[in-house]
Amino acid sequence: MKGIVYHGPRDFRFESIDDPAIREPRDAIVRVERTAICGSDLHFYHGDPLPVSGFAMGHEFLGTIEDVGPEVRRFRRGDRVLVSCTLGCGDCASCRGGLWSGCSTTGAFGPLTNVFGTPLYPGGQAEGARVPFADTNLFPIPPGLDDERVLFLTDILPTGYMGADLAEVGPGDVVVVFGCGPVGTFAQRSAFLRGAACVVAVDLDAGRLAKAAKRGCVPHDPSRDDLVEAVKGLTGGRGADCAIEAVGSPALVRDALAVVRPGGRVGVVGAITAGDVGLPFLQTLTGKNLTLRSGIVNPQHYVPLLLPLVERGRLDPAEIITHRMPLARGVRGYEIFDAHEEDVLKVVLEP
Amino acid sequence: MKGIVYHGPRDFRFESIDDPAIREPRDAIVRVERTAICGSDLHFYHGDPLPVSGFAMGHEFLGTIEDVGPEVRRFRRGDRVLVSCTLGCGDCASCRGGLWSGCSTTGAFGPLTNVFGTPLYPGGQAEGARVPFADTNLFPIPPGLDDERVLFLTDILPTGYMGADLAEVGPGDVVVVFGCGPVGTFAQRSAFLRGAACVVAVDLDAGRLAKAAKRGCVPHDPSRDDLVEAVKGLTGGRGADCAIEAVGSPALVRDALAVVRPGGRVGVVGAITAGDVGLPFLQTLTGKNLTLRSGIVNPQHYVPLLLPLVERGRLDPAEIITHRMPLARGVRGYEIFDAHEEDVLKVVLEP
Amino acid sequence: MKGIVYHGPRDFRFESIDDPAIREPRDAIVRVERTAICGSDLHFYHGDPLPVSGFAMGHEFLGTIEDVGPEVRRFRRGDRVLVSCTLGCGDCASCRGGLWSGCSTTGAFGPLTNVFGTPLYPGGQAEGARVPFADTNLFPIPPGLDDERVLFLTDILPTGYMGADLAEVGPGDVVVVFGCGPVGTFAQRSAFLRGAACVVAVDLDAGRLAKAAKRGCVPHDPSRDDLVEAVKGLTGGRGADCAIEAVGSPALVRDALAVVRPGGRVGVVGAITAGDVGLPFLQTLTGKNLTLRSGIVNPQHYVPLLLPLVERGRLDPAEIITHRMPLARGVRGYEIFDAHEEDVLKVVLEP
Amino acid sequence: MKGIVYHGPRDFRFESIDDPAIREPRDAIVRVERTAICGSDLHFYHGDPLPVSGFAMGHEFLGTIEDVGPEVRRFRRGDRVLVSCTLGCGDCASCRGGLWSGCSTTGAFGPLTNVFGTPLYPGGQAEGARVPFADTNLFPIPPGLDDERVLFLTDILPTGYMGADLAEVGPGDVVVVFGCGPVGTFAQRSAFLRGAACVVAVDLDAGRLAKAAKRGCVPHDPSRDDLVEAVKGLTGGRGADCAIEAVGSPALVRDALAVVRPGGRVGVVGAITAGDVGLPFLQTLTGKNLTLRSGIVNPQHYVPLLLPLVERGRLDPAEIITHRMPLARGVRGYEIFDAHEEDVLKVVLEP
Repeated sequence: MKGIVYHGPRDFRFESIDDPAIREPRDAIVRVERTAICGSDLHFYHGDPLPVSGFAMGHEFLGTIEDVGPEVRRFRRGDRVLVSCTLGCGDCASCRGGLWSGCSTTGAFGPLTNVFGTPLYPGGQAEGARVPFADTNLFPIPPGLDDERVLFLTDILPTGYMGADLAEVGPGDVVVVFGCGPVGTFAQRSAFLRGAACVVAVDLDAGRLAKAAKRGCVPHDPSRDDLVEAVKGLTGGRGADCAIEAVGSPALVRDALAVVRPGGRVGVVGAITAGDVGLPFLQTLTGKNLTLRSGIVNPQHYVPLLLPLVERGRLDPAEIITHRMPLARGVRGYEIFDAHEEDVLKVVLEP
Repeated sequence: MKGIVYHGPRDFRFESIDDPAIREPRDAIVRVERTAICGSDLHFYHGDPLPVSGFAMGHEFLGTIEDVGPEVRRFRRGDRVLVSCTLGCGDCASCRGGLWSGCSTTGAFGPLTNVFGTPLYPGGQAEGARVPFADTNLFPIPPGLDDERVLFLTDILPTGYMGADLAEVGPGDVVVVFGCGPVGTFAQRSAFLRGAACVVAVDLDAGRLAKAAKRGCVPHDPSRDDLVEAVKGLTGGRGADCAIEAVGSPALVRDALAVVRPGGRVGVVGAITAGDVGLPFLQTLTGKNLTLRSGIVNPQHYVPLLLPLVERGRLDPAEIITHRMPLARGVRGYEIFDAHEEDVLKVVLEP
Repeated sequence: MKGIVYHGPRDFRFESIDDPAIREPRDAIVRVERTAICGSDLHFYHGDPLPVSGFAMGHEFLGTIEDVGPEVRRFRRGDRVLVSCTLGCGDCASCRGGLWSGCSTTGAFGPLTNVFGTPLYPGGQAEGARVPFADTNLFPIPPGLDDERVLFLTDILPTGYMGADLAEVGPGDVVVVFGCGPVGTFAQRSAFLRGAACVVAVDLDAGRLAKAAKRGCVPHDPSRDDLVEAVKGLTGGRGADCAIEAVGSPALVRDALAVVRPGGRVGVVGAITAGDVGLPFLQTLTGKNLTLRSGIVNPQHYVPLLLPLVERGRLDPAEIITHRMPLARGVRGYEIFDAHEEDVLKVVLEP
Repeated sequence: MKGIVYHGPRDFRFESIDDPAIREPRDAIVRVERTAICGSDLHFYHGDPLPVSGFAMGHEFLGTIEDVGPEVRRFRRGDRVLVSCTLGCGDCASCRGGLWSGCSTTGAFGPLTNVFGTPLYPGGQAEGARVPFADTNLFPIPPGLDDERVLFLTDILPTGYMGADLAEVGPGDVVVVFGCGPVGTFAQRSAFLRGAACVVAVDLDAGRLAKAAKRGCVPHDPSRDDLVEAVKGLTGGRGADCAIEAVGSPALVRDALAVVRPGGRVGVVGAITAGDVGLPFLQTLTGKNLTLRSGIVNPQHYVPLLLPLVERGRLDPAEIITHRMPLARGVRGYEIFDAHEEDVLKVVLEP
């Protein structure tokens, strides 16, 4: 079997690796049919070297089940399935409480497992992958839905939606979304889906802002105009009801806290790899009675809610795809994505 | 001043009445510029005679302030305002707790005041009206919004929205809305606004069902097909997540309870004038762990949330207007509305 | 093996029955060490004959595991366990959504299974019982907790607590609890646990009212004083914040709706076997903007929350036990409980 | 009139000041009968000099109304009242939305007004005080409740309770409260009131820890034992459900984030005057899916909920009083409180 293999920063190779095999009675083996490169994959592309290497990258993928362990009950060979990027065991207190991404024994695919100190599960940028606790971590794909419409339910559609959920976006709200990348796009869509009256989309890229405007957002380039003032203008001087950080920048978390009104809520779904973030308490978090939430996506909770919206056409996640290429060319996909070439927004790979 | 005056069932007359005047220091006098006939007005058109008569009908209206009492702080002569159909004093425990429609001292305009045993406030199907506790019960109309877009914020837009709120409609839900009249229409729009994946619109009128289908609903005529079976077909046998009764029929409340899944929620915003409603507990409310809510609309809570959605064009309440006529012809409007003539959905009157 | 066997109304017999055995890979066999007679058992003692007979009664029990099927993961022979009275499969949409008592394939022990049209699981008033889907329906008993302190976690402690949960009892609330039997007692304790300022305990039995007063409740005998007036006196004329029906009487559901304030909540956990219940909408459910909830207990949700309170001594459920007897004398226990002899509140049986 | 007057850090003087007078139509003048020194007063006792001076300190006080402006409706001369430490106008969007402490035009008494850049209202450590927007900011004291039982409803009882509210303390929770001072004490009481199974009280002072243990808390001195390990021991390795910071220390906010489980909630009610606080995102706020809230107390929301609990004896706030002295000796009170002399917990002053 072949896949995109981590050997170190900027050293990803398409090469042969071991075929996945059932190791535990609740495992399933999935033949990967579509996968994507995620912004969080890039952290490992240009970050510090990991202590491990030689495993397949990727955690956004779907495919068809090739084999299941003897204790898998909900799935069988031949089922078409989505794979959750984060992995729950299904039995621990977090999983039983509905926070599968807080599972005490399992983590996520690919290098993310390393971040969280959990066992390594090779990723899905490969021809196949082993999925542990399959009954918990797979979702059946309803007939008639093509791969591209459902692929992002494995990670970034629920991640973007979770931004709106963490920020408690509700009907009539004015919402500021920091970032118009893939997660930001879905956060904007989710804000509207939850009834936002107005979504301010913040980015420095004119092309991305133009797309956000087409989605109905108010585009804002903070290098040109002051964001706090602009939002005051939209809200009678009061501030936004909520804000979503979908970039992963400490400065933007602070901007999010600054831009919301007293009683506002801020949801952070960008991955902040820059160490601690200095936050103003006395006059901001405390003085404005704010709520700040962050989190790792929990697809087991969100997919049952989002999949019907995709089925009914209320969300079309394929809108973000700008690049499609064979898995064999995936290393080139990383280069494009990392360098922001060709107006790239999302690269999808086909094994 | 002239208005549509109640003299008894089917005896409404356009005639002269006393001009409204400031009686209490928090009163305002509104010159009515647009008003509408509500389904609940019809209860008095064809219901039992009331013990009082000689007052103007109507509780959905907007206009311009002509005069204010000395303790009105937020408004002044010349302001363009919406008038809440239900009236709060602003000071009692219910009002302070945010449930203005549960106010212990005040009720609503027109004959509704009689239903709730509170003082009679003549209604807004007149050239002018006195509004008590003006700071609590008026809302400023933002510049640039024409009357027809905001008129229904005084009652039936928040009533329809409240149906979705009472039923806790949330993202991904399958929702059944009983009724495609004005309130049902707004309940359907509100269900989508709150993220519903699928809204089943139930009515016997083919024309109303066709309009609901255009709004994106799944139309259902229960005289042709079994509703419970149809909803099971849409939900993998499970049942709807929530249901909204927007007609006022005991049988439909029971149907709503029957059609929802275990853990489902039912919101009743139709006015049930037929006495007690027999509800099945052991195998339905209890056996399915259901939540049932009903309520009188609370515009003071909902207008701040819904007005931005109208301003931003996410809701266009004028869609329901089928008839426009001068106030002087309003009695004819009642006849049309009562007899369901001319595919009437909503009659708007202009003094 | 011996147990208390249903042969028809008032014809329960302590006699031999088949030993329970593993039939499905997720079954467990529990050797019953303590069981109790529930008010809902009495419905079958004096109700209409069931179409089935010859099975053991009872659904409140605990014991030690004797055997497990090959797919049981969380438990093994020798574990001391509580058994949930309602049974979930763990895999269906209701179970995955946290409403195990709404499971689409499984119901409850003993005759309750018949009520819900699900397969018959013989009950726990026997020396042993088969528990399906053991990982979902068993809870480990922490060391050091004796049987009587934890037994009621299997049903009536969570049932009483659920009454307070359905009624949304919160800090500072005035709460009316209808009934001072076992479930009512726990509803009262739960109301205080959730921060109620005042709990009005309603019953006709002077002895039970005296006990409620000792728990800190305001006792109220409605045959002596008008309840609505009394609650108005306690709440400045406003009405209770919430009410819990823990008897199963249609009249008391109506009293609960009458006694709450605008915006109030009513939770019904009494089993209403009397057919439909006529409820006043226009001036009550609608006019006061009420929430009405009912439900079958969901121990899988509540035990993780209540068990720590029992462990820490904040709740002592054994307080309700008035009678202890060997299982062999359990038929006599039914007679005492049914006839309200000897100030009986709860009968516990030991196999 | 005399009061404790700010002249600069460690320069507070009991001296004559102008009598308060009605300036606006909604003002009331309160003759102060009991007041207290708050921990936040100490920030000004030993902090940087303020740009203003010559005003009375204090924001926790109660008394009797001496005079009201012409637009005060709910109160009259002779009423015994509590005074909210934070001040709302009652009309702005925050006030109408229930967050009076987020009022856009008004702030708080004494030097706090300066912190928030709002007009200066001289404080209540004086014989009298002017209260703006009296209908919004005063609460009637029910007959029969003595001053000491209700005094702390003006600030620190709701502040402590808000800690539990921000941290979403619920039934069965394990809660860590940082600090056993006045606010910490009330946070602990509030955690129990909301159903906590276990409250870990953290402090370095053995005497305060002993008092916390008497309240039913698990005392913890972090200089002796590792807190994270101790809480893991209490929670099967999982972590606390929620944590409340009631000291105002950046390090303790970080400890609070460290000690909670995945999905945990942290409420910060200590005033953090030390500038920005560096918070760990990737593996903590994000990796554990945490909620962090802070806030300024909002007595208008909390008093209606807490006062009934004081009336019914479920809370006895007077428990924290260690020192009572005449207002004239209040400067000595500051010295004692600032130096932690005489096991001081709370100093109450009587004009």
